[in-house]
Amino acid sequence: MFQTFEPASDKTFASQHLPPLRKVLKDMELDGLIVPHDDAYLNEYLPPYAERLMWVSGFSGSAGLGIVLEDKAAVFSDGRYRIQLKDQVDTELFSLHITPEEDPAEWLCENVGGGGVIGYDPLLMSKAGLASFAEAAKRTGFVLKALTENPIDVAWADQPEPPCTMVVPHPDEFSGESSASKRKRLGEALSKRGASAALLTAPHSVAWLFNIRGDDVHASPLPLGRAILFADGTARLFLRPEKVDKTLHRHVGDDVIIVDEADIDDELKDLAQGGACVLVDPALTPLHFVEVLSASGASIIEGEDPCALPRAIKNEIELAGSRQAHIRDGAAVTRFLHWLAQTAPTGTLTEISAAQKLEAFRSETNALRDVSFDTISGAGPHGAICHYRVTTKTDLAIEPGTLYLVDSGGQYQDGTTDITRTIAVGEPTQEMRDHYTLVLKGHIALATARFPKGTSGHQLDVLARLPLWEAGLDYDHGTGHGVGSYLGVHEGPQNISKKPIRQALMPGMICSNEPGYYKTDAYGIRIENLIIVTKPAPIDGGEREMMGFETITMAPLERELINKDLLTDAELAWVNNYHAQVREALTSLLPDETAAWLQQRTAAI
Amino acid sequence: MFQTFEPASDKTFASQHLPPLRKVLKDMELDGLIVPHDDAYLNEYLPPYAERLMWVSGFSGSAGLGIVLEDKAAVFSDGRYRIQLKDQVDTELFSLHITPEEDPAEWLCENVGGGGVIGYDPLLMSKAGLASFAEAAKRTGFVLKALTENPIDVAWADQPEPPCTMVVPHPDEFSGESSASKRKRLGEALSKRGASAALLTAPHSVAWLFNIRGDDVHASPLPLGRAILFADGTARLFLRPEKVDKTLHRHVGDDVIIVDEADIDDELKDLAQGGACVLVDPALTPLHFVEVLSASGASIIEGEDPCALPRAIKNEIELAGSRQAHIRDGAAVTRFLHWLAQTAPTGTLTEISAAQKLEAFRSETNALRDVSFDTISGAGPHGAICHYRVTTKTDLAIEPGTLYLVDSGGQYQDGTTDITRTIAVGEPTQEMRDHYTLVLKGHIALATARFPKGTSGHQLDVLARLPLWEAGLDYDHGTGHGVGSYLGVHEGPQNISKKPIRQALMPGMICSNEPGYYKTDAYGIRIENLIIVTKPAPIDGGEREMMGFETITMAPLERELINKDLLTDAELAWVNNYHAQVREALTSLLPDETAAWLQQRTAAI
Repeated sequence: MFQTFEPASDKTFASQHLPPLRKVLKDMELDGLIVPHDDAYLNEYLPPYAERLMWVSGFSGSAGLGIVLEDKAAVFSDGRYRIQLKDQVDTELFSLHITPEEDPAEWLCENVGGGGVIGYDPLLMSKAGLASFAEAAKRTGFVLKALTENPIDVAWADQPEPPCTMVVPHPDEFSGESSASKRKRLGEALSKRGASAALLTAPHSVAWLFNIRGDDVHASPLPLGRAILFADGTARLFLRPEKVDKTLHRHVGDDVIIVDEADIDDELKDLAQGGACVLVDPALTPLHFVEVLSASGASIIEGEDPCALPRAIKNEIELAGSRQAHIRDGAAVTRFLHWLAQTAPTGTLTEISAAQKLEAFRSETNALRDVSFDTISGAGPHGAICHYRVTTKTDLAIEPGTLYLVDSGGQYQDGTTDITRTIAVGEPTQEMRDHYTLVLKGHIALATARFPKGTSGHQLDVLARLPLWEAGLDYDHGTGHGVGSYLGVHEGPQNISKKPIRQALMPGMICSNEPGYYKTDAYGIRIENLIIVTKPAPIDGGEREMMGFETITMAPLERELINKDLLTDAELAWVNNYHAQVREALTSLLPDETAAWLQQRTAAI
Repeated sequence: MFQTFEPASDKTFASQHLPPLRKVLKDMELDGLIVPHDDAYLNEYLPPYAERLMWVSGFSGSAGLGIVLEDKAAVFSDGRYRIQLKDQVDTELFSLHITPEEDPAEWLCENVGGGGVIGYDPLLMSKAGLASFAEAAKRTGFVLKALTENPIDVAWADQPEPPCTMVVPHPDEFSGESSASKRKRLGEALSKRGASAALLTAPHSVAWLFNIRGDDVHASPLPLGRAILFADGTARLFLRPEKVDKTLHRHVGDDVIIVDEADIDDELKDLAQGGACVLVDPALTPLHFVEVLSASGASIIEGEDPCALPRAIKNEIELAGSRQAHIRDGAAVTRFLHWLAQTAPTGTLTEISAAQKLEAFRSETNALRDVSFDTISGAGPHGAICHYRVTTKTDLAIEPGTLYLVDSGGQYQDGTTDITRTIAVGEPTQEMRDHYTLVLKGHIALATARFPKGTSGHQLDVLARLPLWEAGLDYDHGTGHGVGSYLGVHEGPQNISKKPIRQALMPGMICSNEPGYYKTDAYGIRIENLIIVTKPAPIDGGEREMMGFETITMAPLERELINKDLLTDAELAWVNNYHAQVREALTSLLPDETAAWLQQRTAAI
């Protein structure tokens, strides 16, 4: 199993770990410490040794920040984690705050006098991340001190070792483009911008550029490492030597020199002293490296990670791989749904047993490399918690008369999947059916949208929401995120949400399409398929070519929850056509009994 | 008549006016001059004396910028004016450039060497407007020189006098809130921001804040003037003394001191020397005033004009007035449409004669104070030019078998109107009907949208476009602009377009809803009504209150152009319901024959 369901922390963490940390702070003559959630790779998933915020506070959410002072401490996270904060953090020892309404830098201003010394680890914070603190320090007169040793690592007695898994090639048959080709075109783009090199500190950029993968973190096949790409297409790749073998050396070729990650500062100094002009992403790069470069005299150009957009625009090989992965994954999900239909009405399932069974079906494909995130397996009221993560402490039974929401995905060498289905266990209420159908209408509106070149995700977001808005409902999360190719299940720069962004949708990008509706303490509904942005194509009788989406997730919708009377003819045709595609794609991969079940579940409505 | 149709310029302007201007530049030891379209009020409409860009280049568009050097000259405007630029500007003397693809500051960099001295008039440019030139000057090494005398005003032999019309009170029965009340609440907001005063340089802000109107420019009832609002709600109002009488003094009361506009610099110096902290809008304020303040030691807070949002959010009196104005205006438009239906099939009408008749019907209301902009009266292919302005040189006949597009509006004391109707003259083609119906579907989608608090216009824009996008069509303008209350027909800060903006739609804002479709060299279609943003209201069975729009424009749509087969039941119901409202609102105001015609034109489809 890739997933575990034991709680990773408990409420005693703060009382256990604050005292030793405060002792270290005192020894280091610090009045306080900023503890970001991020590790030195500013990555979504952390290896256990880097769960510093959790260690000190108990809070295990995927985003947040702590501040520890001599006599008080605070944890900040966003509204998604309001409940989880209360569940995990000892409020005798930490005050809890919701961002952006409450601002950590403001809190520091109010709680630290002028002259106080607040430490931070410049490996764990970007320039963008530190900006509000730097501004507050200037305003209030406290001192921000960059530390060379992280006090938590000193205080944490049984801190795990950093991960050290072998780095392996990601073959061109999956990547669709050689690393040399990627480096050449990105190098040329660097030249055009007047940069002689780019510093790449994000592991998924390193993985993409060199066509390599690893196993250093949960749920993403990432090798933790860094790189410098030069304008001539050559590169330095920084990895711990224990992770590198001859196969990897052969794979990267002569134009890429693999260097011990421990030596990166020296290499950056050499680069700077050679008069380099280095492109750096101020939001993704740990401040430490920017300062090493600056201190040694490099010119710095701030700009988006040059891998971000090329990585998001998948090539034909990646798209074909992703379609294959989704058929394989869809067959596993369909086996799960069939099993669930047979088993759930007995009332013997729980959130964990269901999630385990789903992972088992995926494993039986023999192609699963990892889950793409921890399964959100939400029975009844837990379905209404958008980012619910089941543990042995919360494991609810899946009971007849309820809805069960399951959001899950797999990492396959040919693609990353992410799918949500909402299942009626037993007989649903009319209200459940109506709400599901409204969510479905929004899902279909986005799936079928046509739009001109230059359209950004925020322009389309409303299509998925309008049927809910018209009914006085909404959901408090984005409609779609970018998805990697055997990489992170969340990647930019595209996005489909209320929040405006500059990046237009480009052909070959993969996004999720996941509107939902959540009735607090009752049930949650979400319907999620992945979609590929299609090339501009002419429309009969039209003048301008329009882009659109191709839905690649293959698994039946919950027909028991569809109220046909609320659908237009076109919407109903979309459902029937989608179901026909699903049947066509999956039948040959399914056991006969499941194929027969699917046949019935995808019959025209 | 408020409108004239004689061309305001011709292609000889450049050859007539460049030589005397260049002589003045030489006398002033300048290598070049930046000539913005704007006047010293950075206002949409210019009085004739301020048409400096037109005087030098011949170009009369509403947005643009010229640069005159010793041996070359350039005019820049946006894509809307591509054709007009070619028609009006002598390309032997000016090169023509389309923004933002081509950038005036870049052009200067390429055409002026280091050390060249380029003049600009700091009364005609804001800090935001000058920014790219300042950056370019720094980069390339040319010198930007702020002038105290405008070279065009020196060279322009028969320059008209600046306008000087009496400033009159705008009664509380129309404004709905006394100036004292507005000044009090804006003053309090200034205090909260830490500002002791705000400099107001935009005439429509001055007009709104003091409940005054004037007649200094075409199409907007604006008094050209400035003001300083103090945090205690008192103010200085800067107007030329010839514009002020006792009635005005009584109207503004003792808390507002009216000062000669010529003395504003001295007052700003006094203000600055008194240690004031002054709020200034960097996009709306001529740089001259910012520099007077800075040079005299004022602290400056940059922020949006504090009148902008309060002015956009109309109170109940203004909304009631606007509804009344739209009924009155709608009756005039309906009389025009009836007359057009009777007369146009004879083929004797032209764009000008139709626009004159429409203005005449509006004048017959005895309430028309001005048109709210020059009527866009576009026959056949001219309808496809979004910002077409007919002159005696372009006046086309309105012929059977074509579409006629008329976009017009009136200024009434109780409200400003803006309406577009597209009329089939004789029998339309099936293609015309289909395209009109697609535009109508988008119009209805926006008119009927429901949306939560916090939604911005750019989130809704797609609703008006989607039916066109699905047919491979689009339009290259925004879907909706803000509209003033007996003020400018274009006002911010709200907007409904592809371009993302921060400002959410707020109850009481008035916007246009005007999707269109334009077939080059053939015909144009636009359907425009004004809409009021409604308060959040509960929806049956829903959980969250939703806002929406109330359509206030009252005039029949073109039923000959509606293809019922392309409408959903809900869309058809909207049309029939809208037509019933129009009939109900207008019948009593119409001559019997027109009422009977309207009855037939608004019968259920």
